Formats: sequence, C-alpha cells, structure tokens
Amino acid sequence: MADKFISIRNVKFLLFEVFDVLSLSEHPYFSQHNQKIYNLVLNAALKLSTRLLHPIFEEMDRNPPELIAGQVKVHPAVAGIMKEFGQGGWIAATFPAESNGEQLPSMVANACFAMFFAANYSAGVYPGLTAGAARLIDSFGNEGLKKTFLSKMLSGQWQGTMALTEPQAGSSLTDIATTALPTVDGYYKLRGRKTFISAGDHDGAENIVHLMLARIDGAPAGPRGISLFVVPKMRLNEDGIPVSNDITVSQIFHKMGYRGTPIAELSIGDKDDCRGYLLGEPHRGLAYMFQMMNEERIGVGLGAASIASAAYYAALHYCKQRPQGRRLTDKDPASPQIAIIEHADVKRMLLFQRAVVEGSFSLLMQCSQYEDMTRVVLPEEKSRYRLLLELLTPVAKTYASEMGILSTSQSIQCFGGYGYCQDFPVEQHFRDMRIHPIHEGTTGIQGMDLLGRKVVMENGKAFAFFLEEVQCAMHSARKFPALLSMVNQLYKAIKQLQDVTYQLVDIAHKKGPEIFLADATLYLEFFGIVTVAWQWLLQSVSVQKARAGELSTAEADFYQGKLFTARYYFAYELPRISGLVQRLTDGDPITVEMKSCYFSD
Amino acid sequence: MADKFISIRNVKFLLFEVFDVLSLSEHPYFSQHNQKIYNLVLNAALKLSTRLLHPIFEEMDRNPPELIAGQVKVHPAVAGIMKEFGQGGWIAATFPAESNGEQLPSMVANACFAMFFAANYSAGVYPGLTAGAARLIDSFGNEGLKKTFLSKMLSGQWQGTMALTEPQAGSSLTDIATTALPTVDGYYKLRGRKTFISAGDHDGAENIVHLMLARIDGAPAGPRGISLFVVPKMRLNEDGIPVSNDITVSQIFHKMGYRGTPIAELSIGDKDDCRGYLLGEPHRGLAYMFQMMNEERIGVGLGAASIASAAYYAALHYCKQRPQGRRLTDKDPASPQIAIIEHADVKRMLLFQRAVVEGSFSLLMQCSQYEDMTRVVLPEEKSRYRLLLELLTPVAKTYASEMGILSTSQSIQCFGGYGYCQDFPVEQHFRDMRIHPIHEGTTGIQGMDLLGRKVVMENGKAFAFFLEEVQCAMHSARKFPALLSMVNQLYKAIKQLQDVTYQLVDIAHKKGPEIFLADATLYLEFFGIVTVAWQWLLQSVSVQKARAGELSTAEADFYQGKLFTARYYFAYELPRISGLVQRLTDGDPITVEMKSCYFSD
Repeated sequence: MADKFISIRNVKFLLFEVFDVLSLSEHPYFSQHNQKIYNLVLNAALKLSTRLLHPIFEEMDRNPPELIAGQVKVHPAVAGIMKEFGQGGWIAATFPAESNGEQLPSMVANACFAMFFAANYSAGVYPGLTAGAARLIDSFGNEGLKKTFLSKMLSGQWQGTMALTEPQAGSSLTDIATTALPTVDGYYKLRGRKTFISAGDHDGAENIVHLMLARIDGAPAGPRGISLFVVPKMRLNEDGIPVSNDITVSQIFHKMGYRGTPIAELSIGDKDDCRGYLLGEPHRGLAYMFQMMNEERIGVGLGAASIASAAYYAALHYCKQRPQGRRLTDKDPASPQIAIIEHADVKRMLLFQRAVVEGSFSLLMQCSQYEDMTRVVLPEEKSRYRLLLELLTPVAKTYASEMGILSTSQSIQCFGGYGYCQDFPVEQHFRDMRIHPIHEGTTGIQGMDLLGRKVVMENGKAFAFFLEEVQCAMHSARKFPALLSMVNQLYKAIKQLQDVTYQLVDIAHKKGPEIFLADATLYLEFFGIVTVAWQWLLQSVSVQKARAGELSTAEADFYQGKLFTARYYFAYELPRISGLVQRLTDGDPITVEMKSCYFSD
Repeated sequence: MADKFISIRNVKFLLFEVFDVLSLSEHPYFSQHNQKIYNLVLNAALKLSTRLLHPIFEEMDRNPPELIAGQVKVHPAVAGIMKEFGQGGWIAATFPAESNGEQLPSMVANACFAMFFAANYSAGVYPGLTAGAARLIDSFGNEGLKKTFLSKMLSGQWQGTMALTEPQAGSSLTDIATTALPTVDGYYKLRGRKTFISAGDHDGAENIVHLMLARIDGAPAGPRGISLFVVPKMRLNEDGIPVSNDITVSQIFHKMGYRGTPIAELSIGDKDDCRGYLLGEPHRGLAYMFQMMNEERIGVGLGAASIASAAYYAALHYCKQRPQGRRLTDKDPASPQIAIIEHADVKRMLLFQRAVVEGSFSLLMQCSQYEDMTRVVLPEEKSRYRLLLELLTPVAKTYASEMGILSTSQSIQCFGGYGYCQDFPVEQHFRDMRIHPIHEGTTGIQGMDLLGRKVVMENGKAFAFFLEEVQCAMHSARKFPALLSMVNQLYKAIKQLQDVTYQLVDIAHKKGPEIFLADATLYLEFFGIVTVAWQWLLQSVSVQKARAGELSTAEADFYQGKLFTARYYFAYELPRISGLVQRLTDGDPITVEMKSCYFSD
C-alpha cells in the first residue's frame, strides 16, 4: 500500500466498464484479443512497473544524466529497461501484427503506460518516445528505412527521438533553420542545432534515431518548406559497421525535475558529415511530425495524470496513517488523536486529487478509444473519430498537465512539512510534474490550437461531434434519477460552452485573430473543466449500472468513492467555469491593449 | 535589469502614495522620522540586498546546510549576514528606542524585508526570525531575561527561533508533550522533541535562543496548560562561560527548496540538563507565542510575495529579450520575429504575476499600517486596528502563499523549457515558494482561523471594521469616473462576502462546527480574492490622484501599468469568486459525509 502508485481497479473500471474495450474484439482488427489477454497484459505491466521501474524512481532523480566526453551517461538500469520493453513487446504494443506489433488497442497500451509513468515517469519516456518515432517510420517510411530502423527500435536496441525545437525558434516551428542538402547518393546532408531533445543522447541504447525537421536547400520559407528526416547518431558504413554520423551533444540541461531523462542540445553536421534520410515527401514534414506530436501530447497528458496518481496514493497512505488533532466537536485534549483523513479539509484535498487523477485518466482513455475506433470503423465514419481525437488532444494534454500541478501540490499539502522533504516522494512528483505544461507544446500553444484551429476546422465539425457525444452521455445518464442534477448542471455548462464559442468566433470575424485568440488559454481551461465533467458523468453512469447488481464490501466502497468524487467534481470544480465565462464574454481587450513599456517598473 | 528582484518604484508608491507612511510622523512615536530618512533606509536595504544577499541566492540552494558531528554547518556568508543585519539595526528596526531599536514603522521595516526576501529568501529568514523571537522577550520577559538575551539577539550574535512543532503533534499544538520541571533555582528543566525548527541550529551565530512551548509538570491538559520558555543552545555557567545546554540536533531535513535555511529536529534534555527560563506567566505560553506567530505569518506572506516578485522580474526581463514568433496578423515567415512580450498570452501571464505580486504587497502593507496604527492611536481606538490586523493576517499569509505558487509557475511558463532548467532562477523560486502554504500554520489552519475565529470573534466586530474599511475605499474611488465600474464590481463582491458569511454563521448555529468549517479553506480563498480587489481599488485611487499632475514618460508608464494591472485583476481574478460562492452556498456536506473507506481503491 505504501508504494501503491496507481489503482488497477480504476484502470479496469475505465477499460471494461466505462469504455468497454472488449467490444473492440467484435472487429477483425482486434478480434484476437479477449478479457483474459487484457488482464494478462495489465498484470504484466504492473509487475514490470513494480519490479523494474519503481525501485529506481528516486535514484534516477538523485543521480541525473551527465555529459562525459561527449557521451551522455544515464542510470545504468536504462539499458535493461529498453531491452525488457523491447523484448516484452511494449514498444510495439499498438503496432500492427504485420509490423511485428502486438496490435493492442490504444486503450490497453495507454493503461499500461499509465502504470509505467506512475511508477517512474522518466524511465517510461525512453520506450514511449521510441514507439512514437518508430510509428512515424512505419507510417511514412519506404521499405529501406523500415528495414534499417524499425526492428532495432521496436526491440529497444535503438532509441527514437523527436527533434523539432531549435534555440532560436522554440515554439515557432516556422523558423526552423536546420538545413538539408540533397546528394546524388539519395541521402541529405544535415546541418543545424536542435535543443531540448528528450533522450537526445544516452548510453542505454546502441544508437539514437532522431526524427528531425529540417529545410531542404531552396525550400519555401515558413511551415510549407519543412521536411522530415530520419537522422541516426551512428550510421552504418558500406561494410555495415556503425560509424559516427557527425551529431554532437553540445550540452545537457540541469532540470528541476524529470531528471531521469536527459534533455540534450545537439549540434548537427559540424564536420559536414551528417547524413539524413528523407521520410515521405519533401516539404510535408510538419504534417507527418504532427502524427507523432499528437501521440506524444496524449503521452504527456498520460504522464501528468500518472504522476498525479502516484502522488495521490502517497498522500492517501499518509493521511490514513498519520494521527493528528481531533474532531471539531471533541474538546477533550485527553482523547486520542484521529487519523488526519478524518478531517473534512483533508478529505476535500484527497477528493480533489482523486477527481483530477481519475477525471484525467478517463479523458485520456476517451481519446484512446477514439484512436482505436479509427482502426475499426468504416472509412466514411473514420473522420468522426479522427476529428474528435484532434479536438480533444490539446484538452487532454492540458487539463492533466495544469491540474496535475495543483493536484501534486495538494499531495504535498496533505503531508504538511514532511511533504516538502525528500523523505517522501511527493516533492519529486511536484517537480516532475512541472514540465508537462511546457513540453510538446506549451499550454498557450494548446489554447491557440484548440480555439484557433480545432474548434473551427471543417466548419466546426469536430466541435459539433463533441456536442453530440456529450448529449449522448446525458441521454444515458437521464435514466438514473440520482444523476439528474449532474445532467442539468452539465447541460447548462455545455450551453455556456456553445454560447461562448459562437461569441468568440463572431469576434474573430469582426475584430481579427489577435482579440479572438487573446484568451485562448482561458477558453482551453473552460473547455477542459466541462470536458472532464462529461467524463465524470460517463463514469457515474457505469457506477449506477454496477450498483444495480450484488457487490462485495470492497466493490461497494469503490463505487461509493466514485460517486462522492463525481459529486465533488460537480460541486467544487465545475462551478469554476462561471468566472471564466464572465471573463471570456466581457469583451475588454486588456492584454491586446497593454503595452510592453507599461511593464517598465 | 537582469538581476532586478523588486520594484523600488512600487515600494515607494505603496509607502508614500497609497499608505501615506509620512502621516505617521505627526504622532510622537514616529515623529523623529521623515521622508529623507525613509529613503535612506530603503536605499540602504536595497544595497544590502544587492551586495550581500542576492549574489549567494543560488549558492545557498546548491550547497544546503549539513549536519556534521552534531553541528549544523550553513553557508559561510550567514555569519556575516547576521552581523551586518545586527550592526545595521535591521533586526531591531521596529523595536522602540528604549530597547535600542530604530523605532521604524512596520511599513518601512517590512518594505526593507521585502527586498531582503526577494533577493534571497533563505538568507533573510535568519535575521527575520531573530527579530520575532527577540520581540517576544522584549514584550514579556523580565529584566533578567532581557539583559541576558536581548542585546545579543538584536546585534545578530545570537539566533532566535520559534520552537513549537513536535513530531507527534504537528499543527495540533494542544498535543505538545515537551515537559518543563520547575527547580528551586528558578529555572526549569526541559525535556522533549521539537521538529521543523527553522534555523534551529547553525554555525553562523554564536548561540541559538529557542522560544519554546512546553508543559510545566502538572499543568492542565490542552492549550491552557502550555507555557513559553527561553531555552538557549548554550547557557552561561556561574563563571559566565558558555556551556552546552543539552540540546542536540537529531536530524536536519533535506528540502525541495528554501534550502539555504536549515530546518532541524531537536532532542531536548536527553541528559536531563536542559535549562529553560519561563517567559511571562505560566500556562499563558500559547497566547504569548501567537504574538510572534502572527508576526511570522505576515513574514511568510511577505516572503511569498517577495519570491513571486523576484520570479516576475526574471520572467519580465526574459520576455522583453526573447524573440519568437510573429503577430497573428503577420503571415510572412520572412519578417523578423518579435519579442515574446508582444504576444497577448504572454502579457496576460505577466499581468497575472504583477497582479499577484503588487496585490499581495499592498495587502501586506495594509496589515503593517494597522500594526503601526496600534502604536499611535488613542487607547480606545487601538482595538480597531488590532482586530483588523488579526482578521487579515490569515488572509495576507495565504493569498500571497497560495497565489505565489501559481505566480512563480507562470514565471516558469514565460521562459518555456528554459524556465525548467537551473540556468535561470525561476525554478528555484518555484521550489522556494512551496513551503509558504505550510509553515507557520498551513492553509487549512488559516482557513479555520479566519472563519472559525476571526470573523466571529467579538460578535463579528473585526469583520464589521473590515467592511467599513472597504466602504471607505469605495467612497474615495467614486470620485473618479474611471473607477466606477471597479467600485460596482467590488460592491457586489462585498455583498456576496457578507451574504456567504452570514449564511455560514447560520449553518454553524444549526448544524455545528464540522459542516460550518468544512470549506473554510474555500472561504479563505474567496475572502482573499475580494480583499485584494479592495487593495487594487485603493491603489487605483492613488494612481488617479497622481495622474492629475504633470508626469514624466517613465512615471506615466508606471501608472498606466498600474491601471492595466488593476483592470486585469477585476476582469480575470475577481470573477473567480462566482464559482467559490456557488460552492460555499450549495449546502451539500460532501466532505463531511465522505468516509475514509471509500478512498480504499
């Protein structure tokens, strides 16, 4: 219990009760799987997390990577982790069988990665990134590239990365300046600098394979001139012997948290001898990369929810053990102290954490379900699920990341002073969490993506599908009298979301993009709170169904906890939208009119 | 500019324009001071901060205290800091001249401590704590105690501490178990354990003087059996030679931040040879200690606001320097990138930080003004200011601390990935900040103090005075048409605060303390947002007055910035109360009814 970092009961509740992963087996693509297999997979993931990842959670933080003589040295366990993840099929978990994958649903694979991340986020990143990079090659690479890179990556021998960011460009991918010069031999010569590359170099893999954005010589300026390349750290020479591919690590960053994974700055082609292999068509790199980017954004949300989960269970354990104070009605100082979990304010803090953790996981499972649906539905239905997934990706990434900061902060608060000390894991969870609103696109970028792109794309089609989904959930919930007040609250919230959205789109037409998008971050926050309310309603429907049957005490307690957490969410969290709606509709363009010189003193 | 950690312009705005510190000079107690003196004092404090404290801000974090052979070793600069602070009169800044103090107003002294804390919070804590402990001796000690301890503490030779917390008791002071056995020689023999004692031992002072709570043998159980003792680490033997007083450091804590100050666990009287000297009357220790506790709570708020200030100016500097992206209306990728401060979302993040920093400072100055007023008004008016200060202490402590977490988090966000790295100071500010909602009474404790004690004490007198103060500010503001919409918003907010308060008090009568206080933390949050709105209105009045005269460009920009920040606060921050009011009035006792067994899985 002390080392519990995730609730398997909750994982199975989401998979089997809320999102009915077994119904996927009716479709040929997933028909080889059944409940028994899923349970075996989940148990294996938990064992791996407990045996391999969790024991070095603190060690990897206290002994961060070092750059020694040009080589990044990481915790010695990383090599073994990569190998076990490769051999166990975890990197290829969702790859199709024809690519030597396990062809598992995303829902199941992400449930497993939630365990890995909750046990030790930094450790889970190595195989997670490798899977995303390998999928890019699998999706867009020619046979030669697949043959050279794919099996080595899926087996965990080679590390994959995504190499987008450059020092002078940051979030502005338009300004990518790394160049690629075509050669007569088919490969390109790359030159430039990349920064903040996660797992950008380390000695736990035999090779590092960068999926790198660069401009082909003479390409148009801006986003339509960016191509995607496979650029390995070591390339094979004509005799099949690995030789250096002229990529050097110029520095690694010393970070506040997430210290088990090295973040590197790379210098590419200093000796004019860095070879890269074009992936797909020239100039379409940004579009390809967004396949991996979107997958990684869900991964970031999953990492955030998982870290919050680990911190929550540490806090819960402490609150059950720690005696302090008495009931407010008990004025006798000689009476024994009670466990702090008996105090209403502590229960409030725990309910908050549980609401964030289980609300985030539910939304991430929802996204994974959409992903799985694109694999099984008829071609004409595919776009519905793709659009829903695209719409909800910035929401799921950001809700889990931003609320995760507050959730891990409350985990610390449950411990009091002890939570601030390294004797307990929550201070590390708080530090590890803080990267999530930054990497794979900051919260500001996600807000612009949601409001400026996703909500309005294809004439608002994705947003319309989303409203249908919520209405469908409300329809199911109306059958249960106990859920009616939640349905009414969500109904009003959705109405407000529609009103605000249409009002903002109107502003876009009348006043242009700057005023339209000035509060996109707040809009995203608003959207996230409503979306997670929908997820809590969905969960509540499953709880009501389960409670119709016979239940053991433990099961009854689990469902009671779910009901209280949903009730908490609707009473404490959903009302927060009122303030956001006020702001989003008041029309005062403060941040546009504010001048930088007014910040002078 | 890169190393700016506080705005002196803002400090002077608050002191001279908003809170009119010079008017205090009309009263005999402060009549020896004038603007010239205050400016000299402020300049000296800034120089001290810049020269002595800020250069070792990072060093003290990277090289935290160590416990070596029973002695806590701190950064070698600490000894010099204590000495300079003693010699410069900073520890005795607000002490009366008859106690060899500078007899400065709290407003001015706290303005100076804001600089110290912003430059290097950990470093400022050593003299700050010493001042609070010395004041307890000055207020309640007999001549013998004053003679022995006071001058050594005010000169910075001896460190003062507050020793309340015990491992088994934490926030529950009722359960303090350290014992004090009277002896025929007048002193007491102390025995017990104290934990989380800031500066509880270190080699930067010749001696450590603990202001320690303990129970005299045979004292009644509970809070009315607690006495306060002066317990030095070294006591003078009959020949005046310092000898050990049987206090050992059993451990020091390794913390996430605030690493420049050691936090110690002490074992007292293991050899039955620890002598303590009773301060004041027996069994009244808790009441005495709360003088220091309240002072330290304001100090914690000040520390939080100051850390947020330093992080804000670091972020502001970066946002002005860093080019990235283009205006949303500029689609030409060949046009030069703009500084990120030009993006509306970045300005929003900066306005948020400024609103929190300057709003917190304003509220802390307000509290300091009340403190100063108790020294100059007629005896019959004293209780008004004492009550106002008591009411607002938990609010000022908590608003600055809780919002400080969000503010420093936004400072990191302004930097993007760089903010997460040790190359910039903001990650340390974020870590340093996290202690503040915990030490000197957690946020939960502050909420119970505000709603359960302060709001209802003396039949709601403090709350009534507070409403008067806000009404008075609204009255002044109504003279300026530009402020009318703020006045209206605050009027409504205050009305809501009254309604919620009366409704909660009604619940206290009808349903008892558990349901009454279940959401005291939310009530405190609500109270804080409204209180800081009042402070922004007060500041806006001063801005309007100043703008009636001739202004240089720099001055005009400063006041414009103030106006935009106030406008930001009323548009983005104040509306957040809607959600809190909804929750505080919905009456569903979720957290009381939630059972701990429902948290089982």
